[in-house]
Amino acid sequence: MSLRYGTVTLLTDYGTTDEFVGVLHSVIRSIAAEARVIDLTHGIARHDVRAGALALARSAQYLAPGVVVAVVDPGVGTSRRAVAVEVGSGASILVGPDNGLLAPAVALVGGATAAVELTNSDFQLPAPGATFAGRDVFAPAAAHLCRGVPLGELGPAVDPATLMPLVVPISRELDGEIEASVLWVDVYGNAQLNLDPDDLPADSADLVLRVNGVDHPVAQRGSYGGLRGGLGLVVDSYGLVSICLDRGSAAEALGLRAGDGVLIAARTDDPPVSTATPVSLRERPTS
Amino acid sequence: MSLRYGTVTLLTDYGTTDEFVGVLHSVIRSIAAEARVIDLTHGIARHDVRAGALALARSAQYLAPGVVVAVVDPGVGTSRRAVAVEVGSGASILVGPDNGLLAPAVALVGGATAAVELTNSDFQLPAPGATFAGRDVFAPAAAHLCRGVPLGELGPAVDPATLMPLVVPISRELDGEIEASVLWVDVYGNAQLNLDPDDLPADSADLVLRVNGVDHPVAQRGSYGGLRGGLGLVVDSYGLVSICLDRGSAAEALGLRAGDGVLIAARTDDPPVSTATPVSLRERPTS
Amino acid sequence: MSLRYGTVTLLTDYGTTDEFVGVLHSVIRSIAAEARVIDLTHGIARHDVRAGALALARSAQYLAPGVVVAVVDPGVGTSRRAVAVEVGSGASILVGPDNGLLAPAVALVGGATAAVELTNSDFQLPAPGATFAGRDVFAPAAAHLCRGVPLGELGPAVDPATLMPLVVPISRELDGEIEASVLWVDVYGNAQLNLDPDDLPADSADLVLRVNGVDHPVAQRGSYGGLRGGLGLVVDSYGLVSICLDRGSAAEALGLRAGDGVLIAARTDDPPVSTATPVSLRERPTS
Repeated sequence: MSLRYGTVTLLTDYGTTDEFVGVLHSVIRSIAAEARVIDLTHGIARHDVRAGALALARSAQYLAPGVVVAVVDPGVGTSRRAVAVEVGSGASILVGPDNGLLAPAVALVGGATAAVELTNSDFQLPAPGATFAGRDVFAPAAAHLCRGVPLGELGPAVDPATLMPLVVPISRELDGEIEASVLWVDVYGNAQLNLDPDDLPADSADLVLRVNGVDHPVAQRGSYGGLRGGLGLVVDSYGLVSICLDRGSAAEALGLRAGDGVLIAARTDDPPVSTATPVSLRERPTS
Repeated sequence: MSLRYGTVTLLTDYGTTDEFVGVLHSVIRSIAAEARVIDLTHGIARHDVRAGALALARSAQYLAPGVVVAVVDPGVGTSRRAVAVEVGSGASILVGPDNGLLAPAVALVGGATAAVELTNSDFQLPAPGATFAGRDVFAPAAAHLCRGVPLGELGPAVDPATLMPLVVPISRELDGEIEASVLWVDVYGNAQLNLDPDDLPADSADLVLRVNGVDHPVAQRGSYGGLRGGLGLVVDSYGLVSICLDRGSAAEALGLRAGDGVLIAARTDDPPVSTATPVSLRERPTS
Repeated sequence: MSLRYGTVTLLTDYGTTDEFVGVLHSVIRSIAAEARVIDLTHGIARHDVRAGALALARSAQYLAPGVVVAVVDPGVGTSRRAVAVEVGSGASILVGPDNGLLAPAVALVGGATAAVELTNSDFQLPAPGATFAGRDVFAPAAAHLCRGVPLGELGPAVDPATLMPLVVPISRELDGEIEASVLWVDVYGNAQLNLDPDDLPADSADLVLRVNGVDHPVAQRGSYGGLRGGLGLVVDSYGLVSICLDRGSAAEALGLRAGDGVLIAARTDDPPVSTATPVSLRERPTS
């Protein structure tokens, strides 16, 4: 049997403690035996649609063409739609809940060329309960698409314009200060910002990073090692500015989490409000 | 080479921090290169034979036919038998320690049609020490079975009736109250009960759940979202009643763990002993 | 397409929370679609080159021939070399940073027969930033080697004698006491020592283990179960002496971590300094 799509890539918030991921593999193996299944990650924080969407978008350009199954789905079993979204006129298909999870990746690869709602139970498993759509709806849809089932057979067409978008914050400059926010903290503690290196001040070797009211002198370097044990900015592997600590966790050192805001500015000769010293919100005692 | 079995499914308590799982894959790849290996889960709690047995049983109907290797094996290297158990007259074979781990899955798919003890060292790896039977005994047995080695060559026949069973608690009704127990807490904090929805009181929209002496009003809903942010009962993806909290962890909220007992009853007009209020074990102050 | 190497084995400190591992799989799938990718482990402690090197060495003899990609790489993007090291005159190739990570495995399988530095960007991905060599340098190199690209095309030859070694401590005997150190604590809490069972005192059933100044009577047994609930020594699956606790974590019970030193000696009739009692470093109160 020659497959229409040979690769199914999975991204979920299932974790690997339970057997959920293994069951997805088994279901796909049973329907489309020759398909290869790649676990992009199952470590998305529970129910964190935004984190899942960003991870999928970061990876999109590196994925082997085929079918992507993405499941971060707190609304499983409710009226949220289950969808399959075709991109590149059929080069790949993304399958998952219509809750914004797929949106950034779809946009990055050129937008949807077609979409359907997954309602045809002929291509689903009979479900004792409605809580595991990955197993009963999404994985079977992916496997059947691999086998060549036309997209249109999985359910009625959906206008791609009606697919749920995902709002991602954009960095902005104000009075010479850049307001950026943390998109992602990776396992090493690097904090990726929504910031292109071209948008940094001209002298990127002499900057100030303000986090939680504290100013840190930082420079942009080409590698973690270039920070020589300290804190700084490195263009990460996705081309975005990230806050890093050489051989340590910047996020831990600074108390940063995904979604947090930071300020970046050129260093000036003005005495800073505070440098690497916590700003106190209490009034000074009037002696 | 055409394989007798094309899929090896793995379930262990090895975790994924060490290289144990990767070594199993490597051993199988070296013996039966074309076999596909599916990691059902390696997240079974260390030495928890019962949890492993239940995870395997839950998944059994979804597994691709082939060889299953299950290893939760605190007695490795002792007199506990290493076995291979054929089901469906050869449709699949389950390989692992004879400590109850395989029993519920074997029973669910119709019982053993044959079994052998894995004693033939021709189909094992030479072991520097006796502590890693997954690598030295079970994975090689599975790979050789994939290649078509007859079950009977792996060792002497074992009477399936002598295989170690696993006792799983059964729910029961007493004076209108259902005593059930938690079989499994998944990573989302849903607590699966040993309870069929047909055994719930007739009006399943108006129930009382008693956990640790505290009564919680609950209803059965069709999805997590149907609980509208609250606590309740949902038929889970395996068809059993589970205690759930919409977008939260029911197990954490209620302090529930696998093995714990709960009571479920129809709500009455009688004033309850307590409703969603901790029962105090201290006497009230008199005065 | 017939592959020169059919298996790529991965070992990293990436963890499985982020999508790094999945991206490696995707990159390899895109370049050498038929290659099988085996995850040896991605659970090496962050930046712990020594732990990664030991895990790779332990596994070396069990790996399917092919290409190994090992990445524990705190110096990524600096002047540390990225290398590919051929062993067995081409039987396998190990790819990774030249920081000692590959050294013990290479030595165990007979030493390098050739090596190159990975500098040819024709066999790398264009990198938006220099921080993810696994994706941009190592995985592509491995996949191209699978496809038959000759080693010499990946970059200039490196004298194997100049590859960074890794120093591993050796146990030694002094006045009848064996000084050993913990190489590895596995997920069960077994503490593997750098000690061959042949180097234990003659009567290995009657030994004393000193950890953190406390003496524990121990015996060598053939299995965890043979310890009958207690602490003792078991020859582990790699043929080395390990400190184990039957159905428990020896490392937790004794406060042992990788790198810690222990003493082992034959038991004598002399009253021990202390037996399973913490040694106090404070002076006794002079009443």
